[in-house]
Amino acid sequence: MSVDNAHVDELRPPERVLMAPGPTNLPSSVLRALTAPITGHKDPFFLRVMDETAQFLRTVYQTQNQTTLSLPGTGGAGMEASLANLIQDGDEVVVCQNGLFGERMADIVRRHGGIVAEVSAPWGKPVDPDDVRKALANGRAKVVAVVHGETSTGVQQQIDPIGRIAGEHDAMLLVDAVATLGGMPVVPDEWGSAICYSASQKCISAPPGLSTITVSDQAMERIRSRKVPVDCWYFDLNLHDKYWFAEGRAYHHTAPVLMVYALREALRIIVDEGLETRFERHDLHRRALTAALESLELEFLPAPQDRLPTVLSILVPDNVDDARVRGALLNEFGIEIGGGLGPYTGKMWRIGVMGHSASRENVLLFLSAMETLLTREHYGLAPGTALAAAKAVYSEANGTGH
Amino acid sequence: MSVDNAHVDELRPPERVLMAPGPTNLPSSVLRALTAPITGHKDPFFLRVMDETAQFLRTVYQTQNQTTLSLPGTGGAGMEASLANLIQDGDEVVVCQNGLFGERMADIVRRHGGIVAEVSAPWGKPVDPDDVRKALANGRAKVVAVVHGETSTGVQQQIDPIGRIAGEHDAMLLVDAVATLGGMPVVPDEWGSAICYSASQKCISAPPGLSTITVSDQAMERIRSRKVPVDCWYFDLNLHDKYWFAEGRAYHHTAPVLMVYALREALRIIVDEGLETRFERHDLHRRALTAALESLELEFLPAPQDRLPTVLSILVPDNVDDARVRGALLNEFGIEIGGGLGPYTGKMWRIGVMGHSASRENVLLFLSAMETLLTREHYGLAPGTALAAAKAVYSEANGTGH
Repeated sequence: MSVDNAHVDELRPPERVLMAPGPTNLPSSVLRALTAPITGHKDPFFLRVMDETAQFLRTVYQTQNQTTLSLPGTGGAGMEASLANLIQDGDEVVVCQNGLFGERMADIVRRHGGIVAEVSAPWGKPVDPDDVRKALANGRAKVVAVVHGETSTGVQQQIDPIGRIAGEHDAMLLVDAVATLGGMPVVPDEWGSAICYSASQKCISAPPGLSTITVSDQAMERIRSRKVPVDCWYFDLNLHDKYWFAEGRAYHHTAPVLMVYALREALRIIVDEGLETRFERHDLHRRALTAALESLELEFLPAPQDRLPTVLSILVPDNVDDARVRGALLNEFGIEIGGGLGPYTGKMWRIGVMGHSASRENVLLFLSAMETLLTREHYGLAPGTALAAAKAVYSEANGTGH
Repeated sequence: MSVDNAHVDELRPPERVLMAPGPTNLPSSVLRALTAPITGHKDPFFLRVMDETAQFLRTVYQTQNQTTLSLPGTGGAGMEASLANLIQDGDEVVVCQNGLFGERMADIVRRHGGIVAEVSAPWGKPVDPDDVRKALANGRAKVVAVVHGETSTGVQQQIDPIGRIAGEHDAMLLVDAVATLGGMPVVPDEWGSAICYSASQKCISAPPGLSTITVSDQAMERIRSRKVPVDCWYFDLNLHDKYWFAEGRAYHHTAPVLMVYALREALRIIVDEGLETRFERHDLHRRALTAALESLELEFLPAPQDRLPTVLSILVPDNVDDARVRGALLNEFGIEIGGGLGPYTGKMWRIGVMGHSASRENVLLFLSAMETLLTREHYGLAPGTALAAAKAVYSEANGTGH
């Protein structure tokens, strides 16, 4: 409130290396897209951009779904749109909860009049598919909602078994791929998901502000045949579908034109790199970071088989000050990593291996900085340990660090 | 979906002069802000940017309201957030309807379980405040929702009398200022509005994708004390308020960092220009355009006293082809204006006088193009009529055309 308008000038943000779980740094051509000449949202040129964006999204989601588009809101908009469209008052929804975003799903289900059948696991562990089966046994639930990559804990959930169980019980599968799309395989068609959504600013490396979503034809049929309209106009997927794909493009909202330009360019880069190559790149840097952090005897929250390749979550060692280390990382080295959320506030570091930020340069810079800062915290380590461990991984991978 | 990924390259949008009612062309420093170094959404630098943005918004809204912020969605997000937060199941809401956006408000009220007490006027006319009084007479309605500037018709609604009537009946006033904020006086505190919202891409001249909103302390009190949570998590203003202003900035969503940078810069430009100067500039170009269009004997939809300064809506003359004229404007001259909506599809031209696009250069270019195109349509006019009429206005204003 103490801002004095008269003394505020143009922005001069500091340069940051973004290694939190999103947003990431942006490729230069994405920045160029943001400042390309703006057109109106009904301009024939922009309508073509929408078509291209949808087609790129289908490639990245590896899907045949027609209704594949971006929504004018952040990742949470994707979550709310998915739930609001699939459920109606009194519907029971199985929500898999093992972190902040599963909990948010449950909150949203309740706000829209749904009943939550909770399937939970402790933070740091995946949900047990057998628990999903039990929750579906009474035949009441119509939707199973699950988070593929829990950004809050770095836990990867295997979607295949849950998708099979949902299918056996005729329940629609809803998958949150916010932390995973573009960084590891996300396969809504194989999973049989009704809706899968993600966000622009994580492994896609577009600016934050958009979510992306793909809806199966069957789910769209269900949404179209609702007797009660979706209880949120802004997120009514029927209206978005008509705006993106219907003859005449029924006006819904003024598209965030420049953001869509940027998303299209970020997707184009992904298609250009190739999905497999991109996933291998993420995995390489994950391995280098993992080897380095383990060499420092830092403890990961999830067990090895449950870890995401895109978000590494390690516990802050005893006698090391979280705020001091992350503050120095930011202020002395210009590096942002994530802190802990919920019960892990002050107790966790979350390192993103995401999109354009996932590079050997960033990994080595980060490890070099961490060695300095942990030494300053009197955390016993031999100088160069972490860097050496990472370099060994890169070297084994034939030096193809980027 | 004939898009072939392999043949899609970086974007090369055409250069457009945007004279539809939003989006507008963007000042170069807004473009610079969009590509300034991106920081995380929890970076101390970005938190300062949020503070500055809120303070600039208070200046532009001429308000003392603490809860003044931007929402991560387009103008429609502002509308939905306002209604979803103020109403609960079964609440009666007086909705003033005289165009597309009033109708949308009614749709949203119903989706959130509210009951619409409709007060309507034909498209092209303002709503009669006496009708609002009648609708409130039974004492049931708790909210009066009204559109200040109907983008679909170019009609200006006088808010003062409706605000007074709402106050007399203890109803909360909700004002849509999407088409007006930054282009003419918008004074939520004087009006006594509970909530007033707008969008980024009209007279503010930031890119499309954000809405802005200001909520009175009393309305926030009401929202905080709701027994039933807002039925939409993404738009829960209590959560947004805590994210923007609470100690510790309770995480809600990943802020659209670059869009907020751009909004902040667009607002800074407005404060720098000065609100009064800016309103006079809009009015000057409105007068020039009006004189020119009248010299061509083109008919406005609203009566002179009901016209917005920011959206001029004229009827397409008989025997003139709307699609042909707007197509040629776009393709031959690079100029976008708006077409008609709803019952006026194909029958109306809507010309925006908004923000950075509101300049003498643009007005003269547009009129010159229109003279050419109307002549081609065999619309009887003496060459130079429109340009001469506009120039007379500029000349009378002492040549201060920008």
